[in-house]
Amino acid sequence: MNNMLNAIDDVLLMGPGPSYIPPEVYEAMSKKTLGHLDPYFIEIMDEIKKLLQQLFKTTNNLTVPVSGTGSAGMETCFVNLIEKGDPVLILINGVFGVRMQDVATRLGAAVDALEFPWGTPVIPENVKGKIEEKAYKIVAMVHAETSTGVKNPVQEVGALLKGSDTLFLVDTVTSLGGIEVSVDDWGIDAVYSGTQKCLSCPPGLAPVSFSDRAVDVIMGRKSKVPNWYLDMSMVANYWTGKKRAYHHTAPINMLYALYQALLLIIAEDLDNVWRRHESAHATLVSGLETLGLDMVVEPGYRLPMLNAVYIPEGVDDGDVRKRLRFDYNIEIGGGLGDFAGKVWRIGLMGHTAREKYANRLVDALKKIIR
Amino acid sequence: MNNMLNAIDDVLLMGPGPSYIPPEVYEAMSKKTLGHLDPYFIEIMDEIKKLLQQLFKTTNNLTVPVSGTGSAGMETCFVNLIEKGDPVLILINGVFGVRMQDVATRLGAAVDALEFPWGTPVIPENVKGKIEEKAYKIVAMVHAETSTGVKNPVQEVGALLKGSDTLFLVDTVTSLGGIEVSVDDWGIDAVYSGTQKCLSCPPGLAPVSFSDRAVDVIMGRKSKVPNWYLDMSMVANYWTGKKRAYHHTAPINMLYALYQALLLIIAEDLDNVWRRHESAHATLVSGLETLGLDMVVEPGYRLPMLNAVYIPEGVDDGDVRKRLRFDYNIEIGGGLGDFAGKVWRIGLMGHTAREKYANRLVDALKKIIR
Repeated sequence: MNNMLNAIDDVLLMGPGPSYIPPEVYEAMSKKTLGHLDPYFIEIMDEIKKLLQQLFKTTNNLTVPVSGTGSAGMETCFVNLIEKGDPVLILINGVFGVRMQDVATRLGAAVDALEFPWGTPVIPENVKGKIEEKAYKIVAMVHAETSTGVKNPVQEVGALLKGSDTLFLVDTVTSLGGIEVSVDDWGIDAVYSGTQKCLSCPPGLAPVSFSDRAVDVIMGRKSKVPNWYLDMSMVANYWTGKKRAYHHTAPINMLYALYQALLLIIAEDLDNVWRRHESAHATLVSGLETLGLDMVVEPGYRLPMLNAVYIPEGVDDGDVRKRLRFDYNIEIGGGLGDFAGKVWRIGLMGHTAREKYANRLVDALKKIIR
Repeated sequence: MNNMLNAIDDVLLMGPGPSYIPPEVYEAMSKKTLGHLDPYFIEIMDEIKKLLQQLFKTTNNLTVPVSGTGSAGMETCFVNLIEKGDPVLILINGVFGVRMQDVATRLGAAVDALEFPWGTPVIPENVKGKIEEKAYKIVAMVHAETSTGVKNPVQEVGALLKGSDTLFLVDTVTSLGGIEVSVDDWGIDAVYSGTQKCLSCPPGLAPVSFSDRAVDVIMGRKSKVPNWYLDMSMVANYWTGKKRAYHHTAPINMLYALYQALLLIIAEDLDNVWRRHESAHATLVSGLETLGLDMVVEPGYRLPMLNAVYIPEGVDDGDVRKRLRFDYNIEIGGGLGDFAGKVWRIGLMGHTAREKYANRLVDALKKIIR
């Protein structure tokens, strides 16, 4: 039988994730599988927790990778904190805010949404008005809106919530490891991310972190978490308990990959990593502008790792992306939702965030769209 | 910084999963990551579906790997089929039946349980009585009860349900790829498995399959599935839709591993694979008996891939397992729940199911317990 894996191209991943994977991470993933209760594996788990704490800038004890992709992280944060009828406010300016609204609504929360136009950031002043009107159990927002390339003011919204009983829930899927995320300083109570963006690890895990008061809320629930797989009270026993109780079989080799990816980031130093994202971004934007392309987001609110750019009039979206993929071995992303067919999303995430790759894409685009 | 991955031992995995991984699967996992909407990756997805259909012996269109470990497969089957108050019957004779009861109860089902002593099989005659008393929406059972080593009569229970409106939901986490699983012939409507048992692939994915009438039930739900991440109506769009709609970022490299693991099984031929499990099992049992150890399960109901054996009087469970792991590089499993401290669980799953490994363990045990 023909083995399709033998013909996989080395594609430069410049879409909205997965990002380019460093060789050390591939190598890590193919280390011998250990049992999920193996004493040595448990030591590796402990190291992963510490490394994630450094990345999230938190002392939260419950800082662990959930056994699913980024969206499982979103599900985890909401399903553990929400009980039927809980008032929840979601700040929405793109697909991932809409997804939060869908997730929370399915769980029976009383969801209010505060919407902002796509391509523009959340405005803290408007949030202030909303939270003065009503006491919410949870306010949730996306840090890096992957569908539009907007950086949202998480720190500012966190400041508005300080001193209140409201839990602050933040999506850092695309931001973690690419720009600053400061869980403790910003007053974040529940946060999730994904491995396939700025961590430059294949998709498959969702790092999450819960503050002590969020843990108190979980432990004090009236109803059981309506999701056995993602019930953090049990997952915590496996990841942080004195006696590591079996819950489900952890994805061992994915965890090796995450461990290695985190080691690489810490070795490079977070400040250097962020600077590398900024400089690759600057190179890309000026390159795109010389081609006459327009960025979707105003300069002050742009994410370095996710660059949304308008597709020029008369240029065929699918055709350009197909030529990039098959003539130049480069992947970029199309638009989602309202932006489908109108916008390209160019990722400079993690290992991909290098000036040479930004230039390689601009050169290819120049040849294709002339 | 010290990299812990450099000191991982090559442990012979003879616990209840993960199992020993063939070198081809490690290699597959470290192939270059493609995007989750990449045209070539979508072709690989199509092949995975076909291979899973062969393994499950089904023509079900909705036969896909869920992005989580085996327990996420359990969650997927129940959360998609259950709506509040639905009558569900769970057949229980071990930890994984109890887990089903917990999962279904959290989802608001009206759960009845029919229990059988641990170490003994489900008795179809008793099930017959129960389903004549009451019309259930779902009857659920575990094929290979990993906590006890019992093979349950799935085919016989399926026969009792034929012609009724009841959906038949089966856990094949430990059985698939080790003994026959015949989804269509046995009348199974929803089935899940895991990659880390007889498929000999690292943990991280849960193959599932839904019959057309189960799909009709999902599509005809009154309420949305209260789990966005595992909502099969959306997952199906990504895996089986004409236009592959983005749902969540699939765990690309884990899917490479699963593809390769399935290719190996099909190349060896399912009948040969099952025979290999049987002969390794026979070797192990006779070896254990020469050491004076007693099997937990009566001969007719033993699983070849999960061998539960009583820990002899006066022998320290933890001490033996530690010596096996650190002096002989072999992992076996301890008991779960009521069997903790009383039973060892010895896996002969997938790549591990070879007479030479059975002999290696027996030799090591002989030296340790004398």
